[in-house]
Amino acid sequence: MPPFLRRYLPVLDWGSQYSRQTFESDALAAVIVTIMLIPQSLAYALLAGLPAEMGLYASILPLVAYAIFGTSRALAVGPVAVVSLMTAAAVGNLGLTDPGAIALAAITLAFLSGVFLTAMGLMRLGFIANFLSHPVIAGFITASGILIATSQLKHILGVKASGHNLIETVESLLSNLGQTNLWTLIIGVATTAFLFWVRKGLKPLLLGYGLKPRLADVLTKAGPVAAVVATTLLAWAFGLADRGVAIVGDVPRGLPPLTAPSFDMEIWVALFGSAVLISIIGFVESVSVAQTLAAKRRQRIDPDQELIGLGTSNIAASLTGGYPVTGGFARSVVNFDAGAETPAAGAFTAIGILLAALLLTPLLYFLPTATLAATIIVAVLSLVDFSILKRAWAFSRADFFAVATTILLTLGMGVEVGVSAGVVLSIFLHLYKTSRPHIAEIGLVPGTHHFRNILRHKVTTDPKVLTLRVDESLYFANARFLEDYIYDRVVGDCELEHVILNFPAVNEVDLSALESLEAILQRLKDMNIHLHLSEVKGPVMDRLQRSHFLDEMNGRVFLSQYDAWMALSRDEASPQAAE
Amino acid sequence: MPPFLRRYLPVLDWGSQYSRQTFESDALAAVIVTIMLIPQSLAYALLAGLPAEMGLYASILPLVAYAIFGTSRALAVGPVAVVSLMTAAAVGNLGLTDPGAIALAAITLAFLSGVFLTAMGLMRLGFIANFLSHPVIAGFITASGILIATSQLKHILGVKASGHNLIETVESLLSNLGQTNLWTLIIGVATTAFLFWVRKGLKPLLLGYGLKPRLADVLTKAGPVAAVVATTLLAWAFGLADRGVAIVGDVPRGLPPLTAPSFDMEIWVALFGSAVLISIIGFVESVSVAQTLAAKRRQRIDPDQELIGLGTSNIAASLTGGYPVTGGFARSVVNFDAGAETPAAGAFTAIGILLAALLLTPLLYFLPTATLAATIIVAVLSLVDFSILKRAWAFSRADFFAVATTILLTLGMGVEVGVSAGVVLSIFLHLYKTSRPHIAEIGLVPGTHHFRNILRHKVTTDPKVLTLRVDESLYFANARFLEDYIYDRVVGDCELEHVILNFPAVNEVDLSALESLEAILQRLKDMNIHLHLSEVKGPVMDRLQRSHFLDEMNGRVFLSQYDAWMALSRDEASPQAAE
Repeated sequence: MPPFLRRYLPVLDWGSQYSRQTFESDALAAVIVTIMLIPQSLAYALLAGLPAEMGLYASILPLVAYAIFGTSRALAVGPVAVVSLMTAAAVGNLGLTDPGAIALAAITLAFLSGVFLTAMGLMRLGFIANFLSHPVIAGFITASGILIATSQLKHILGVKASGHNLIETVESLLSNLGQTNLWTLIIGVATTAFLFWVRKGLKPLLLGYGLKPRLADVLTKAGPVAAVVATTLLAWAFGLADRGVAIVGDVPRGLPPLTAPSFDMEIWVALFGSAVLISIIGFVESVSVAQTLAAKRRQRIDPDQELIGLGTSNIAASLTGGYPVTGGFARSVVNFDAGAETPAAGAFTAIGILLAALLLTPLLYFLPTATLAATIIVAVLSLVDFSILKRAWAFSRADFFAVATTILLTLGMGVEVGVSAGVVLSIFLHLYKTSRPHIAEIGLVPGTHHFRNILRHKVTTDPKVLTLRVDESLYFANARFLEDYIYDRVVGDCELEHVILNFPAVNEVDLSALESLEAILQRLKDMNIHLHLSEVKGPVMDRLQRSHFLDEMNGRVFLSQYDAWMALSRDEASPQAAE
Repeated sequence: MPPFLRRYLPVLDWGSQYSRQTFESDALAAVIVTIMLIPQSLAYALLAGLPAEMGLYASILPLVAYAIFGTSRALAVGPVAVVSLMTAAAVGNLGLTDPGAIALAAITLAFLSGVFLTAMGLMRLGFIANFLSHPVIAGFITASGILIATSQLKHILGVKASGHNLIETVESLLSNLGQTNLWTLIIGVATTAFLFWVRKGLKPLLLGYGLKPRLADVLTKAGPVAAVVATTLLAWAFGLADRGVAIVGDVPRGLPPLTAPSFDMEIWVALFGSAVLISIIGFVESVSVAQTLAAKRRQRIDPDQELIGLGTSNIAASLTGGYPVTGGFARSVVNFDAGAETPAAGAFTAIGILLAALLLTPLLYFLPTATLAATIIVAVLSLVDFSILKRAWAFSRADFFAVATTILLTLGMGVEVGVSAGVVLSIFLHLYKTSRPHIAEIGLVPGTHHFRNILRHKVTTDPKVLTLRVDESLYFANARFLEDYIYDRVVGDCELEHVILNFPAVNEVDLSALESLEAILQRLKDMNIHLHLSEVKGPVMDRLQRSHFLDEMNGRVFLSQYDAWMALSRDEASPQAAE
């Protein structure tokens, strides 16, 4: 088999060793994930502002595509809460009102996101996702969870409300509070309470009754399905739709439709930025859960191939009436715990959802949307975790600032502004930090070959010799800082004859920094001071040798700082310094 | 005197020691700079698409403001070529046609730029200018020089032409070539040739005639003035204006007018981005020449106070009918060489220009614009220097890529796109480079305490112990890279018991990197491998102690890599390793 096939089609790898035992494990995991995914897929479609069936469609072919192209053996792909919210925001920006046009925009978004992810994967550009720092993502997810939960309150209350950010949504909810529908409220609150109880209290109870842990797990995961069945029956039996309870209504029965994205350039331009954000957020979330799960079994995932896996998934979604998908955190953990051994478990889940689309959709007619909203609220509140703020505050003010800004802007100005600001701010803060590098004046620790900061240690120095240790790579953002620092330190120091730059922590020197070094050299020459370097790393030395700097230097390059000190200090004969 | 007054009003510092001898030096320098500045100020106003007198107005009060607030003793502030071109581009973006509205936009641009610079200075944000790397500026200035010279060709030919980039301008010139005015062409070409000859050939000639070098210098600097006088006389004597030669025409005589910027928010929004770019480019150019000249006399400039000096200069320009100004490279060098000792030389230059505005403006009526165009062309061609491309290519491909892109985009898409792309690209390339840090597997150099890369040196290793030296600070953009690297290296290596991360070149660890270290620790724990650290820097150790990472570690933190090796290697008793 040609190696590129094996690389781009991981299915060939695990598929060739597929056994009956593997099949049994995968099939069991698929049953559990399917039970979890049916209500979630309907609910997340609702969250994205789309018809419920699009959630089902997004959970069929995309899972098969990931099973063929993905490298994680436990990742459960499909609609997820945060990406659904971002889809709602992206499509909402277009200001469409026609449901057909809204669905087409979501399909187009999945297509653009799929093409972008696949292209990144083929170009092996997975590192771009690294620019989204962990704390920024954590803050973003927490804020998104709050936004999502708040946005679902209208379904629990049975009122109309809207808003692009927390304040607008809450204001809109409060102003419509008078129209609350009692029956909807009862169903919504009861379901939410039931689901919270299932999450926290059911499993210990079942174990207490002597059930096997595995079975208790399955029953716990079936909580949302039970809520769906019970509230649907109630709504049907008591004719709640006539009493103002919103129900899902007609869900088309049958195979997913064949669809195509819009090829209207204007829509592409309008959606492209959102598609990039959705792709990167989805990829980062997905790859981090995939990596965590793979590590538990000493397996590997390939982040670049994961891009292709998620990309083809999204393209598959756009061809079969779905909307943007990615690997879900909770479902993947369930899939893993349930024993999924290969991506085939995803394909089996797709079969389960397909059966649901073929057989169960008529039964969903009376399903109250409040039930789905309760499912969403219980699912996303587990995403909300403000401990990142505490961690960040304790660790560094810059990280805290980035996280807090991301949370505030996401809540106050929406998901797209929030996450973009987080990325830009992280980059800016990093550049700011490295633009003022730590520079220490160092001296010899008596009786050793070690040199330490003169401010922190009792060291030997020489008024003729100034040694500066630069604790940062030198590049354009900090080159001038070094120039200023040295000039400030040297000007007016009439005894000085030698300046040594100690470079063990300088990992890179770019052209701007080279020009600064040349400027430093020139000024020191003008003052009759010699410039020396010590402990220059191999790659930096290679780089300097490609310029004229070393030829122009009026000092030397020393392999060790101790050699430099021995050669330049006037005390070379004294026992204290020459130890 | 309160220290903040001394800091914000450098004039109090040098003014208190002002002597007759200093006055004489400053006055002589002012005469020479005035002679140079009169034709330049008219010409650059023309380049900015503004009436000639605005160049004179921009050379009066702004110079006085800089003399009060600036810290450089040699910087000559006023209209400069690149900022004039950027002014033309910024005002051109507004699509105005009314000359009054155009002038008001330029005045507003000066005001916004002045406020931005002053605010940056008061907030001590001068470091922001560092994000404009040296090579990007060098490329930008070279491309701007070409754009400017090309844009002036129409005045030399006497045709109409326009364009926002090189291609448009050249096409427009070629299509109008048929309308070339012979008289204009003769004046333009002759003046250009004369000015080049003055630059290269006049001084040696004068020295050959036995003139003193100082006098030869002054005469050489007067070349443009001589050209102005001669061509004005020619145009007047032969009635060239009637033969189609464009002349400057009416230049109002008198004091600069009192003006105010527009306070129309829409114009502010439209001009703000341009004002930021102009401010930063102007500041970077100005501060680098000021620093170079200050260093020659072992003086200091304060970059943050320079922002205030240039900011007040621009505000002064906006109040007296001027347009954006900054410190000019060539004029500052002339000012320095002519002996200027304090910023008072700038104030005396302002008096010279004021006298010109009061007395000479009527004489400028017949001045051909071709003469001014020739002045500009000869001045800017000295800015064009493609050697930066060669230097960058030799030094590093990333720097070359940034410079080449800046040059091409400036020529092809204009100054604002060019310089913005340069900044963004520099930052992106830096992040890209640091996102894939150099990580070396190291071993003990036999007979020493030193550890080196196992790929480059013959070293002792131990299959139980893996030591990785990380040659980069760890932050969000490369944290996951380290995770992947370690996981790839460790998985499947069954003999391994200890991983040591050697951190002498890690200058920072941010929260994302901490989370990656925690993930690495967790995975290694899952594999029963111990994680150790060695040679962790003080600030990084301080940071790690603010988290739980060190408590959770299943290994130790060693002060030196040799200690770590001695403690963990099974060969500690063998003479080879224990030397």
